[in-house]
Amino acid sequence: MTGLHEQLEEIFHPKSVAFVGISTSNPFHWTRTFWDSLREFQFEGPLYPVNPHGGELDGYTVYASLEEVPGEVDYVISTVNAKIAPEIVQSCARKGVKAIHFCTAGFDETGEAGCEGLQQKLTQLARDTGVRIIGPNCMGIYCPQSRLSYDTGFEKEAGNVGLISQSGGNSIYIVREAGWRGIRFSKVISFGNACDLNECDFLEYMIEDPKTTIIAIYLEGVKDGRRLARLLARVSGRKPVVLLKSGLGEAGARAASSHTASLAGDDTIWDALCRQFNVIRTSTAEEMVDVLVTLTYMPDPGGRNALLIGLGGGACVLLTDDFERQGLRLPPLPEQVRQELMSFSQLAGNMLRNPVDYSQDMLESSNLIRAIQVLTAWDGIDFCVGFFRPSQLPPPAWEIVMTWGEALVKAYLESRKPVAFVCDSAITPERHNKLFPVLQSFINAKVALYYTFPGAARAISMVVEYNERRLK
Amino acid sequence: MTGLHEQLEEIFHPKSVAFVGISTSNPFHWTRTFWDSLREFQFEGPLYPVNPHGGELDGYTVYASLEEVPGEVDYVISTVNAKIAPEIVQSCARKGVKAIHFCTAGFDETGEAGCEGLQQKLTQLARDTGVRIIGPNCMGIYCPQSRLSYDTGFEKEAGNVGLISQSGGNSIYIVREAGWRGIRFSKVISFGNACDLNECDFLEYMIEDPKTTIIAIYLEGVKDGRRLARLLARVSGRKPVVLLKSGLGEAGARAASSHTASLAGDDTIWDALCRQFNVIRTSTAEEMVDVLVTLTYMPDPGGRNALLIGLGGGACVLLTDDFERQGLRLPPLPEQVRQELMSFSQLAGNMLRNPVDYSQDMLESSNLIRAIQVLTAWDGIDFCVGFFRPSQLPPPAWEIVMTWGEALVKAYLESRKPVAFVCDSAITPERHNKLFPVLQSFINAKVALYYTFPGAARAISMVVEYNERRLK
Repeated sequence: MTGLHEQLEEIFHPKSVAFVGISTSNPFHWTRTFWDSLREFQFEGPLYPVNPHGGELDGYTVYASLEEVPGEVDYVISTVNAKIAPEIVQSCARKGVKAIHFCTAGFDETGEAGCEGLQQKLTQLARDTGVRIIGPNCMGIYCPQSRLSYDTGFEKEAGNVGLISQSGGNSIYIVREAGWRGIRFSKVISFGNACDLNECDFLEYMIEDPKTTIIAIYLEGVKDGRRLARLLARVSGRKPVVLLKSGLGEAGARAASSHTASLAGDDTIWDALCRQFNVIRTSTAEEMVDVLVTLTYMPDPGGRNALLIGLGGGACVLLTDDFERQGLRLPPLPEQVRQELMSFSQLAGNMLRNPVDYSQDMLESSNLIRAIQVLTAWDGIDFCVGFFRPSQLPPPAWEIVMTWGEALVKAYLESRKPVAFVCDSAITPERHNKLFPVLQSFINAKVALYYTFPGAARAISMVVEYNERRLK
Repeated sequence: MTGLHEQLEEIFHPKSVAFVGISTSNPFHWTRTFWDSLREFQFEGPLYPVNPHGGELDGYTVYASLEEVPGEVDYVISTVNAKIAPEIVQSCARKGVKAIHFCTAGFDETGEAGCEGLQQKLTQLARDTGVRIIGPNCMGIYCPQSRLSYDTGFEKEAGNVGLISQSGGNSIYIVREAGWRGIRFSKVISFGNACDLNECDFLEYMIEDPKTTIIAIYLEGVKDGRRLARLLARVSGRKPVVLLKSGLGEAGARAASSHTASLAGDDTIWDALCRQFNVIRTSTAEEMVDVLVTLTYMPDPGGRNALLIGLGGGACVLLTDDFERQGLRLPPLPEQVRQELMSFSQLAGNMLRNPVDYSQDMLESSNLIRAIQVLTAWDGIDFCVGFFRPSQLPPPAWEIVMTWGEALVKAYLESRKPVAFVCDSAITPERHNKLFPVLQSFINAKVALYYTFPGAARAISMVVEYNERRLK
């Protein structure tokens, strides 16, 4: 029997995939999700649809059973009803399948008498047959390198973030939102009820996986707390780990139990665990995305001294509050820097302190670039954050705002000071459509981009703290 | 001399307006903002552009000075350079103008030697001449009823929220974002450095203004703390007051000072003041908008017991955490309610507890409507929150999600239980364009709409607390 790492390596890179229980009649049926995704990703090995009715699907022969598939099958994606799941595992064993992913729900998470025992049966079968099981009640694997996906819209480009998520929906949310902000993933696994392979197995794999340099985890409960602690100890100092642990209160624990049959556990233990092993603990999915953006584009802000420059005096004051609330500092500009700024910037309507409101000069792109250069050259700050709020700007200003990306990147190249940008995203449709190209230009320039003032402050502060503790 | 209320009543409803210092050559110049806005709003009285160069503007005669304007001038919007501001006030006095709004910056907020004394001069002139001054360094008045505005895009419809804001930019942000979510304003005032009329004057007015039933305040500092406390005592229990006080830390106070020359003051005093007079204290502009939405569409949630129903198990768990973190409760469904739900809903893939994940049945709109009816008929809950996260849904599902608005409104009409909806707004452009009509349908149905799970939880909890304290 091969070791866990090799087993998972094979599971993440199967040579062929069968789809057991796929609907052959309804193209919009949920069981088509995986078929559509692998086709969209141009999976290179053979794909075998399996359905008792046989027939054809998108030009492929549909096999009535797994055993009838002519070639070898490495990996099975099963969408059959929970009740016949055990039967399918036996079928996999006979066929020599290495692993099966059960998307199907209807197991321990229902808490119903009729469903009891079914999941335990799967666990036992995995042990007896050696067929590894992902799930049930989950979305399985997204691995751009091997062209596995459970969403046609995910990015095809591979990256360096590994995500281990107990929830399929939350993984989709995180992959899509982070993907739009320039984050790419090495492997994503939605593992659900974890009747066989669990969060610790995937974490152990990702710690050693050279393609994964940042590990993100969404958990509702844990099967083996001691093993998790050992793994977090092992990864500590090697790769940053970002954790989103849910199911905190009474109803939260109940929700975790009815979602993935998880025991949520005492929250104070999770806090202690994170502190001990320098795990970045986030409390919302948005926060996790903000932290992933920071770790990717601003992995070490270098300290707590921020320079804020943007548009709008009121925005300046609010953003400063958000930064100071998170323990970040805005050192006052020395007179010399101020004089240098004043030599080419307007006084009325700007605020040439720190924060800097550069409203009056920002439409003059050469001034903006020069101002950011002057400010980032100053030793007193560790990093620079630009900001604007589109719902406060008249439309003609937006296009000029694109200069920001250029100015920040230029300043970064010259000063090596980390740079970020906060764009408080407006909701009205016209504004949004004008906004996207601007945001895209920041993302293309590899600037850390945030959507809210508090979100930026919190994520940057968490990454600063992570680095402070790492270096202790 | 007339009283303050009558003076402000006249200022909010001028019969004629002059624009002193408006650019007549550049249609994109910032001094055109007010002219364009009043024209867009179809202000009914005469408008007089004033510029020493004379000539014509949009078919109107441009007068070389205020004194040359043939008719009476009630209200002046001035965009002249700070240095000649005192001269303009004297000109107003000669012309019999009641009030002047100085948009111009470059006064005490710069902290520069050259600007010192200018603002004090204005204060003295207001006292000597009786001409009331708004500002300087602010955007002035938005009053849909009298067709005054400082933004062409503001809603033309009048409403019941009065906003007093020291910052022009923050007021624009709040009016636009809240406007999109269905909030309408009675009067909005951006008052800046407050050399004459200040936050207390406007608050005193709004307390008595029958058109204003909710008062929102953005402050960086206060001129007369005792008077503010007296006014908050007076309004307490009569109209809800929502406060966003910024300038908290060291740099925040410095920012407030360089933005509107404000003394930020000790934050603990503000907290005590809010507790004493049951003022809802928010800490970000987004939070203020969330609270205004709650006060408007769900003014009294009735208690802390929530029913959450939406799409996605992982989303359910996270949302529950957010609600419990804010001290809201999710009582478990009694067996009878559960049985009733199960009689027509699927078991696998749904979570028929509280929170309710209704993923499997939500595409069946009659089931969704029935489920919400069953749940809101149950006595154990005070209010009902539906939710979905578009970045987790396949596109065809979105249109069906529009049923939510219908279902919630129906449930509200039958049960009188307050209802709200959380739509975690996706950022990708295609998604956004599909999303807007859905969001619009909720807003049209007068359902309280939120963009984030934590935001909804926090705003609802703040309004619940406001009501608990009000009834004590």
